Amino acid sequence: LKTLKVALLGFGNAGRAFARLLMKKEAALEARFDCHIAITAISTHTHGCAVDAGGLDLAEAVQTVEAGGRLRGDASLSAMDIITMADYDVLFEMTPLNIRTGQPAIDHIKAAFARGKHVVTANKGPIAWAFDELSALAASRGALFFYETTVMDGTPVFNLAQLTLPETSVTEVSGILNTTTNYILEELAAGKAYEDILSAGRALGFIEADAAMDIEGYDAAAKLTALLNVLMHAHMTPDQVERTGIEHITPADIRAAAARESVIKLYCRGWRDSGRLRATVQPVEVPRGSLLATIDATSSVVSITTEEMGKLSVVEHNPLIEQTAYGLFSDLIRVLNALA
Amino acid sequence: LKTLKVALLGFGNAGRAFARLLMKKEAALEARFDCHIAITAISTHTHGCAVDAGGLDLAEAVQTVEAGGRLRGDASLSAMDIITMADYDVLFEMTPLNIRTGQPAIDHIKAAFARGKHVVTANKGPIAWAFDELSALAASRGALFFYETTVMDGTPVFNLAQLTLPETSVTEVSGILNTTTNYILEELAAGKAYEDILSAGRALGFIEADAAMDIEGYDAAAKLTALLNVLMHAHMTPDQVERTGIEHITPADIRAAAARESVIKLYCRGWRDSGRLRATVQPVEVPRGSLLATIDATSSVVSITTEEMGKLSVVEHNPLIEQTAYGLFSDLIRVLNALA
Repeated sequence: LKTLKVALLGFGNAGRAFARLLMKKEAALEARFDCHIAITAISTHTHGCAVDAGGLDLAEAVQTVEAGGRLRGDASLSAMDIITMADYDVLFEMTPLNIRTGQPAIDHIKAAFARGKHVVTANKGPIAWAFDELSALAASRGALFFYETTVMDGTPVFNLAQLTLPETSVTEVSGILNTTTNYILEELAAGKAYEDILSAGRALGFIEADAAMDIEGYDAAAKLTALLNVLMHAHMTPDQVERTGIEHITPADIRAAAARESVIKLYCRGWRDSGRLRATVQPVEVPRGSLLATIDATSSVVSITTEEMGKLSVVEHNPLIEQTAYGLFSDLIRVLNALA
Repeated sequence: LKTLKVALLGFGNAGRAFARLLMKKEAALEARFDCHIAITAISTHTHGCAVDAGGLDLAEAVQTVEAGGRLRGDASLSAMDIITMADYDVLFEMTPLNIRTGQPAIDHIKAAFARGKHVVTANKGPIAWAFDELSALAASRGALFFYETTVMDGTPVFNLAQLTLPETSVTEVSGILNTTTNYILEELAAGKAYEDILSAGRALGFIEADAAMDIEGYDAAAKLTALLNVLMHAHMTPDQVERTGIEHITPADIRAAAARESVIKLYCRGWRDSGRLRATVQPVEVPRGSLLATIDATSSVVSITTEEMGKLSVVEHNPLIEQTAYGLFSDLIRVLNALA
């Protein structure tokens, strides 16, 4: 039995759901890959850290954090200390996102690659802001770099393109990628007031305290950029997206669209326009009865058009945190396959 | 440069589209896999055959057949002669389908496996009627067996599940899998008469001369069975599907559904019902505004629900013959990856 040592950077809802899935699948992975997954480091923002090159007790760590306790590692160790000093083979970057810069996740990933370590990230910032640099760095160090979870959680998008659409040339990527705006637009259409929607959405956990990143289209732009960087070699950053949010959409706009048998969705699209790659995020009217109009509340869709295969679409239906966990897990399996 | 020898059994529209794609991608495959693809045999039903262990001129073969000519191989060689005697590494089974038996494709594939040859098939019959037996035979001979094209052409369904959803347990598979019935139901809804729809559909190439296999749900049942055999280890045959076709659907039924804001679709579903696997193909009313209602004419959808990842759907939009060709090509790449 081989051992693959994994460091978890961030141990929030997604990180702990991933930990639970890992424990559930431990025997299956050992049987399939003849490999034991040892969690050798966990770094959290508010619950301390834990480091043990021999492998931590993952169940105990989950329990401690969920009970509001602290992990008992050296309290002076920063995330970067763990990245640069701990004993691990694969870093799981799951720290909170700064969507305007991609930091500190970018620096975390660079530091791991500098040591030749593999990286799986759930953090769209690095893919949106620094994909080319990070990919080149990974390649130069012989390190693996996977990021399925950054768009549509565990629903295969990047892995779909990379594993099931080989030797295709992607000509267009489009979709509905931000669920907060989807929810707000539907609630507006149902006649609710903007402020009521926000407060109800916050109470339900659908909407973050600072919803501006969603409402103004930054989150969608970052996801679109990540898709285009990976699938269309766009070499771009989110600030190059032509971006219009939904902050100026009024109930009157929505009623006018409804009178035309349409609904308004925040639509993301990237395509080659006379050789130049263009990327737009904007509210558009889509006809009732179209696929886009059926994507409700927390569901998402990505459509990929290739020269060789025409257009296909992948829909994620009302995901839970388990989908995020599975995305991380499927990237771990890509690592195991690559090392097998 | 290695050589992978390929025998093409069947050289109709799909086979020739695959040949054109292969020629277009020849350099890319040689660069990526350090492997030359040599077509060492082509067997056709009405255009003769060609065999050359050193590699045929594929462009010339396409041209000959498309000009209505005959390939200049020994006219006495049957498909089975070529399978059992020709020099090849991978057999591409693309002969016409007998949906009630899966033959002669099943025997063709068995004969190739008996020689330890890899098989790619575009033929749903063998996956619907003999998947377990063929898989076991392939495994016992160390042969590869891929069949992406059998459901939804080149849109990843089997490869999606096998390559991007590892270690999941599929609990339900559903979708709209037959485009002929989809087209007929839409035309009925548009007020056309059954016989006019059939004759117009035949003229456009959407509907086969004998449409009964589609209309009575056999084609959908075979595709559903193929999906369930592969994704849910169903160990079943198409005759075990609870099947109702659209032959008794009247314009009045469709108007009644429309009055309820619904449309009628031939819906396929397989799921575990108290431990027992059930499979149904039947006309169902789906609400306008649902994903299923948006699947029009020649488009299709498959939804896959897993314990670990919830539900995801893949939509194929208005495929052309190039999508079928790509499905065969993507399976060839699975062979190349496995042998690399």
